[in-house]
Amino acid sequence: MTKCWVKASDDSGFPVRNLPFGVFSRRGEFPRVGVAISDQVLDLGLLAETGVLKGSHWFASGTLNAFLSAGPRIWQEVRERLIHLLTEPSCRPAVMPALVPMVEVLMHLPFHVADLIRFQSSIEHETNLGRMFRPPGDPLPRNWPRMPIGQYGRASSVVVSGTPVVRPSGQLRGLGGADPVFGPSTQLDLSAEIGYVVGVPSTPPHTLGTQAFEDHVFGVVVVNGWRAQDIIAWESTPLGPFLGRFATSISPWVVPLTALESARVVPPAQDPPPPPYLLARRQWGLNLTLRVELNGRLLSEPPFATQYWTGPQLFAHTGVSGAPLRTGDLLTSGPVSGSARSQFGTLLELTWNGRDPLGMPDGTERVFLEDGDIVRVTASTSGPEGGQLSLGEVTGVVRPAVR
Amino acid sequence: MTKCWVKASDDSGFPVRNLPFGVFSRRGEFPRVGVAISDQVLDLGLLAETGVLKGSHWFASGTLNAFLSAGPRIWQEVRERLIHLLTEPSCRPAVMPALVPMVEVLMHLPFHVADLIRFQSSIEHETNLGRMFRPPGDPLPRNWPRMPIGQYGRASSVVVSGTPVVRPSGQLRGLGGADPVFGPSTQLDLSAEIGYVVGVPSTPPHTLGTQAFEDHVFGVVVVNGWRAQDIIAWESTPLGPFLGRFATSISPWVVPLTALESARVVPPAQDPPPPPYLLARRQWGLNLTLRVELNGRLLSEPPFATQYWTGPQLFAHTGVSGAPLRTGDLLTSGPVSGSARSQFGTLLELTWNGRDPLGMPDGTERVFLEDGDIVRVTASTSGPEGGQLSLGEVTGVVRPAVR
Repeated sequence: MTKCWVKASDDSGFPVRNLPFGVFSRRGEFPRVGVAISDQVLDLGLLAETGVLKGSHWFASGTLNAFLSAGPRIWQEVRERLIHLLTEPSCRPAVMPALVPMVEVLMHLPFHVADLIRFQSSIEHETNLGRMFRPPGDPLPRNWPRMPIGQYGRASSVVVSGTPVVRPSGQLRGLGGADPVFGPSTQLDLSAEIGYVVGVPSTPPHTLGTQAFEDHVFGVVVVNGWRAQDIIAWESTPLGPFLGRFATSISPWVVPLTALESARVVPPAQDPPPPPYLLARRQWGLNLTLRVELNGRLLSEPPFATQYWTGPQLFAHTGVSGAPLRTGDLLTSGPVSGSARSQFGTLLELTWNGRDPLGMPDGTERVFLEDGDIVRVTASTSGPEGGQLSLGEVTGVVRPAVR
Repeated sequence: MTKCWVKASDDSGFPVRNLPFGVFSRRGEFPRVGVAISDQVLDLGLLAETGVLKGSHWFASGTLNAFLSAGPRIWQEVRERLIHLLTEPSCRPAVMPALVPMVEVLMHLPFHVADLIRFQSSIEHETNLGRMFRPPGDPLPRNWPRMPIGQYGRASSVVVSGTPVVRPSGQLRGLGGADPVFGPSTQLDLSAEIGYVVGVPSTPPHTLGTQAFEDHVFGVVVVNGWRAQDIIAWESTPLGPFLGRFATSISPWVVPLTALESARVVPPAQDPPPPPYLLARRQWGLNLTLRVELNGRLLSEPPFATQYWTGPQLFAHTGVSGAPLRTGDLLTSGPVSGSARSQFGTLLELTWNGRDPLGMPDGTERVFLEDGDIVRVTASTSGPEGGQLSLGEVTGVVRPAVR
């Protein structure tokens, strides 16, 4: 690949082989589609308006949904055109006016979320839960190794990185079997996750197999699936967590699957072998490293490469019962945890349900999140030519409960 | 109320004090908003176009969402204007051209579903489940009498009455603890329910109490929450039913809460008393009778008046954690069951998990649904002036699984 003529800040994680899509505006402007390049945003709305790029109906828009629905041939055409524009020096005069410094822009929710579908696809996370809450015996539910276990979420709860998160109130589990109490959650947790963004809808009643993953899924985002563990502990029998999963923050940049080819690895072996509809011909483990920071302290580095269930498997499972997949469906991985304590993706696991509080730089301790805490989750992969390729970040500050 | 000048078919269930809203078209026309009156549809799109009615942005639309978001003052103004138009004989010449025989129209999904929120609010249904699957001991989960237990559903799975439902495939529970098998569900069930349709969104972080119900919820629909009990039995530990709730059919007519004033009754006493955020000042039990028919045979008549958790309570609970309520959110009651066998709202209960097959008019028996079966659920209430007020019907035929 030719070198990009945009002045590189090499540690940006947004080189020309990344080109993630998002929706941005400067103060007072209409939101429109852009791609991240180095520390700049390339204004695709403007490029389409000036005829440098085709597709104003995709890019002069406040959401990515129209572009997401256009499909892999268009995604690839646009990507190739953008790479050309950003690497061919003769294109520079036409493109320069469309570059906006990233520090000047406000990022918006990149797409309208159709359905939110939450999985728990990390075997280490599920095992940790089992050891904490379901001892003794096999920590994994019997169905867990045979199908991706998931539940639907609330699409309205999805917000873009940077949106403050208000501590929820609800009925909280009483201590020692006591009656529940109503009030602000005292067990507010984070969850470091990856999300898959569906572009092309399915056409029921025909269902889609794992091999259709790349024809339908556009890309990935970083996710913080906030949760109130004390609300969940009381409400979730027998229908599963509900209001305790009250907010889901996502990174503003959707990284195309195509940009992640070099991150693909063989996923862990699956035993027992999954049924045919979950068999994947192409390997879609992703060698991403997440980083979880609390008030600037690095808490953990969950590895995504060891996720038990892969993107194509989550995708095929979601569609198998015949309910439609739609543009803007967001399939989240659930907490990403590795085998070491330094790789856990929730505070619940990092403190082992409160047994081992975390020391903070200011001398305080944390079991769960306090008001004012700032959580930052990032994800990146090493590129084939060296250097990081970033999925960006998802941040959020905890605001006090509303009284 | 003055008599309507539209020639009445008295058993239609759609007298002038009902006036439910839906979206309709004749073949080849654009869908638009109408209200049901007797055996006719009043074309509000046309009335708005000809200036007889204000609000073409609400009514010349393929969904009710814009009108739903307009709020209770507008809902009431429009309702009063329509009653005037339909009862004042001098209005007849202006209105007559907008009346379309119901038999000539195709009904569409009446609104774009934002989030689907499924409750299990019948104490008889939950008790039946507990007796079948969780004996011995208290058949109710401990949290059940203290909060409405719910889960999110898949908004894309909501279809309008008349849409065929394709038997889903999935991993089915193995018999006697055996491994699961993959294939078409053999335990396809119906679920007779009522759904509440949110009109006016909430404004987080402020939450809404039970008293805000009528300011935000526009009306109700009849629901058939199809379910594959054998998929659910295997997949639902620990996150609850997921793909087994693969389709949700709703009636095409949304009956305004205002039309149901005369159906309101005191709901059952709640013990223990609910926490303050679930206390309702106005009584919102609804004296509706559902009717469940399978291939023309009446299976049961579930009473809605005895629902433990009322609409305002489902509404307040949904909002309490601060996640937004949006125009088009659909809150479903879950299966409506009364205390007698003839009042159960699912085949699972009606056959007591297969122990007591149902005899059909053609001499066959049913435990669960067969391909070709036609399910019809209706709901109605007796009006104050006699005669039925109908919520319409939700029907669906079971199509064979896709191979």
